[in-house]
Amino acid sequence: MVYSIQGYDAIRDHLSDRSRERIQNELLRPMAEFLSTDSPQTFQRIHNHGTWAAAAVGMTGYAIDDQDLVERALLGLDLDGNAGFLAQLDQLFSPDGYYTEGPYYQRYALMPFVLFGQAVENNEPERRIFEHGDGILLEAILATIHQSYAGLFFPINDAIREKGLDTVELVYGVAAAYQLTGDPGLLSIAEQQGYTVLTGDGLRVASDSAAGLTTPFGYDTRLLRDGPDGQQGGLAILRMGEGELAQTLVAKHTGQGMGHGHFDKLSLILYDGGHEILTDYGAARFLNVPSKDGGRYLPENSSWARQTIAHNTVVVNETSHHDGDWRRGQESWPTIEIFEQGDGYNVVAARIDDAYDDTILARTTFQLAMDDGSGPLIVDVFDVDTMAGSQIDLPLYFSGQLTDFSVEFERYTGQQTQLGADNGYQHLWVEAAGELADGAGRFTWLTNNRFYTYHTLASGPAEARIVRTGANDPNFNLRTQQGILVRLPSAGQARFVSVIEPHGLYDPAQEVTVQSDSRIESVLTVEGESATLVQIEFTSGARVTVGIDNDHEDRAHTITANGQRYEWSGSHTIFRE
Amino acid sequence: MVYSIQGYDAIRDHLSDRSRERIQNELLRPMAEFLSTDSPQTFQRIHNHGTWAAAAVGMTGYAIDDQDLVERALLGLDLDGNAGFLAQLDQLFSPDGYYTEGPYYQRYALMPFVLFGQAVENNEPERRIFEHGDGILLEAILATIHQSYAGLFFPINDAIREKGLDTVELVYGVAAAYQLTGDPGLLSIAEQQGYTVLTGDGLRVASDSAAGLTTPFGYDTRLLRDGPDGQQGGLAILRMGEGELAQTLVAKHTGQGMGHGHFDKLSLILYDGGHEILTDYGAARFLNVPSKDGGRYLPENSSWARQTIAHNTVVVNETSHHDGDWRRGQESWPTIEIFEQGDGYNVVAARIDDAYDDTILARTTFQLAMDDGSGPLIVDVFDVDTMAGSQIDLPLYFSGQLTDFSVEFERYTGQQTQLGADNGYQHLWVEAAGELADGAGRFTWLTNNRFYTYHTLASGPAEARIVRTGANDPNFNLRTQQGILVRLPSAGQARFVSVIEPHGLYDPAQEVTVQSDSRIESVLTVEGESATLVQIEFTSGARVTVGIDNDHEDRAHTITANGQRYEWSGSHTIFRE
Repeated sequence: MVYSIQGYDAIRDHLSDRSRERIQNELLRPMAEFLSTDSPQTFQRIHNHGTWAAAAVGMTGYAIDDQDLVERALLGLDLDGNAGFLAQLDQLFSPDGYYTEGPYYQRYALMPFVLFGQAVENNEPERRIFEHGDGILLEAILATIHQSYAGLFFPINDAIREKGLDTVELVYGVAAAYQLTGDPGLLSIAEQQGYTVLTGDGLRVASDSAAGLTTPFGYDTRLLRDGPDGQQGGLAILRMGEGELAQTLVAKHTGQGMGHGHFDKLSLILYDGGHEILTDYGAARFLNVPSKDGGRYLPENSSWARQTIAHNTVVVNETSHHDGDWRRGQESWPTIEIFEQGDGYNVVAARIDDAYDDTILARTTFQLAMDDGSGPLIVDVFDVDTMAGSQIDLPLYFSGQLTDFSVEFERYTGQQTQLGADNGYQHLWVEAAGELADGAGRFTWLTNNRFYTYHTLASGPAEARIVRTGANDPNFNLRTQQGILVRLPSAGQARFVSVIEPHGLYDPAQEVTVQSDSRIESVLTVEGESATLVQIEFTSGARVTVGIDNDHEDRAHTITANGQRYEWSGSHTIFRE
Repeated sequence: MVYSIQGYDAIRDHLSDRSRERIQNELLRPMAEFLSTDSPQTFQRIHNHGTWAAAAVGMTGYAIDDQDLVERALLGLDLDGNAGFLAQLDQLFSPDGYYTEGPYYQRYALMPFVLFGQAVENNEPERRIFEHGDGILLEAILATIHQSYAGLFFPINDAIREKGLDTVELVYGVAAAYQLTGDPGLLSIAEQQGYTVLTGDGLRVASDSAAGLTTPFGYDTRLLRDGPDGQQGGLAILRMGEGELAQTLVAKHTGQGMGHGHFDKLSLILYDGGHEILTDYGAARFLNVPSKDGGRYLPENSSWARQTIAHNTVVVNETSHHDGDWRRGQESWPTIEIFEQGDGYNVVAARIDDAYDDTILARTTFQLAMDDGSGPLIVDVFDVDTMAGSQIDLPLYFSGQLTDFSVEFERYTGQQTQLGADNGYQHLWVEAAGELADGAGRFTWLTNNRFYTYHTLASGPAEARIVRTGANDPNFNLRTQQGILVRLPSAGQARFVSVIEPHGLYDPAQEVTVQSDSRIESVLTVEGESATLVQIEFTSGARVTVGIDNDHEDRAHTITANGQRYEWSGSHTIFRE
């Protein structure tokens, strides 16, 4: 109906009075009445379904000059502002423009927000709708763009991985945002989209782009806080390097995101060199394909894609966070304890206390610039404090081809079986299993033209498995995806230190291969009284040491390691030698 | 040394007389003498190693004005023309410019041919070297380009799949070919390469490209005959559609191609919409990666990549063609029986009598234009005549995600095992197995934005398996690759009819999915006296009937099917109703 109203608007002045009155009185007004009153729960709901209804009713109000409909759409049926478009604006987006379901649904929800917002602006500019809530509508548009890499949205929660900046919703959004801000970086997004809308906004986008005003979009390191007040965790986006393909780490420290949310508290995605390196599976769904359940979410979306084991985060005792119950997940969220962009580093840390009963999960992740011109290093410390005797797993899914590893694996070469019984474990084949001597292991893979080495250091005797999706998938609904699983079979307090190191170059066209081996000699930890050092020794003799307060508190620390005193004050620091 | 000579050429005139004489007499001449006489077997060999030696010796001859060295390089040590560069030109390339090892090695071998060819042309234009053998040097350059799709070479035989038009050898080749022909289509190849050589030829490429003279390269349907006289089979390239991404079917009806050849007689590759749809595994090798056997061919190259089961062709009794012995393979080749480009179709047929003892393999493949604007249809008939009671397998490897299939599969959901014991079968996991009722089955997959349905019709009770590479691969050397295996468990005379149908559109960004189901109702065969009809019935009621003479002979045929007489004269025909 939102679209129909747009159509009606365009032809209204060309209609005879009689036609206009009939359309208005016999068609549009009854429909708007029906939409707003037949199912008041939907109309009053703070949810994108409610926004579609509000937009339809309000835009009808403008189209047929019925101000009552407009008020109802803006303020809810009781005209008290507890429902309706303004309440939805205030409550569905965080102050940073993050939509709690994630970018895939954000771009969908954006459509009625942008279209109705523009209708309000055009008809009643005095409402200053685009200034409402500190300009939240604009923030929401921009936040959607920031949640992308190489043109595609971060595939967190239920997301079709192919969805990106060129969706029609964001074409409207970019045109509107450009009209509001004149930011020439938006023109580069419009050019990626390849088309614009046939409106005045779109015309300005097209003519300014043709006039060569375009500059690169200002992708940056930012925290998109979640929740209406920005107090329910957030999505941390760490970027380092030049341009839109700068290395990008996404830390999903958000709230649950309702029914389409995944049980993936504190999960990570890493992009580098134009590719997704540490991957998120996204949704198990083939849009509009009849043979795939008509395009609906497939059974494997619940049994695999939403489960914790499908993500790059910790699983305790083979059960998913919040026991796989999204309503429970909805009641809590991680606390962001550190978010800082410093000289040569970005860092984010978060903690959640009730993903499991009596369990604390805390993750601290650094993105470190390298002096030698190679890609940034990811240094990640995952602390788990749970019941003694627990099995603690940290999976890591990667794109690419394994080229080397330090583990002596038993390979399941002629026969292989599923990893576990339930909660997503039943969908993984075990390709290999081995022990991690001293908890330490090293895995190198090749993703297109670059090598990546994953250095893992677990706090106790650990096991490693190479796993691959595809088990218990009768209809071939799953994509094949390989992963590395590090397991502490029996632990209570546990720590996983992970270093992800991009290195070298593989150019089979030019027959050039450089630095296919890791440059890191060893990764080790040194425990202080209230802080930990992670020391990374390079084969060159260089050493990078990261210091982290165990409680993320601002305190003074002194730790002696390799005959040297490391002193600092604060929750974290970096020493380069 | 070829490159050193180029370098010396560039600086020669800037040297003092004394330096020049010392370099020539103490360095270059002794090296050229050594190269040509120390290992005469290599120097005299008709092989790319011999060409590198000849080029080095001959170019040294020009550089130090020693005509004896030049003659030796051109005509061999005995100056009789039985060895040396001219003999290599005549014997290593077929009259169509096909190099028997395939395009991956062709572009490698091209380098000394082009560089020495240019040296001869520059120093002794009266030799008309580029006219030698009906211009075979130019044919060889062009044939290399024709053996590519979307910038990458067809990955037949031992080939690094990432290798394509932008290799330095072909940069030289394109510049030389452009100098010779002025064909502006070559400029589009140069632009894809993104760079050119610092020579007069390269300058002309660069300036003509800058002047906007570029036109698309003339990719076309062509048969590249194999063998010095063009009598040893050939590579058939069938193209249909617009531009460089036109649907392209590659039928590998060539000879063995020496030690780097694969045991894949009559195998097919299909490209469509910019992607490889029916795939060739290429080589198991990671160039220059120390952890992968230093970048050499991996053990899985012999145990998997070269074996017949790794290709889209028939395997009898789980053994590879010519028993996996390339020297045996070298002694024979397929006979091309039909190659024709007609109105709305291309067709190629070939036969080989000794891939197995007492066995005839014959394959007839049509590429048919569709009236309804959808992509061309591939209709493929594979006839096998072997010992009764043989197990006859036809695998088909595809890129993409299975979305639908007609077979009631037993899925190996919690445990899976390898397909067979040896000859590559040990590297395949069996993901599912089922029976093909009446030999007929249908499989649909999604490759990027398009659906493909494989309709199979076997001549007897058949089985189907879904397989995937990865078994018995201790070092994770194999890429994951899914395939469909159709098996006649016990047969003597057998026929596999395969129809590959591109259809529909999947655009998750725009949320548009069209025609994800096949438009084909049924595929059936009707046997006549000396010919067969393959009838394809569409859901629209349309029918396409392909007629094939069983011996590819030109004869008159009359067959009655569905109450209708089909009459034609010749080895093949197409009826559209």
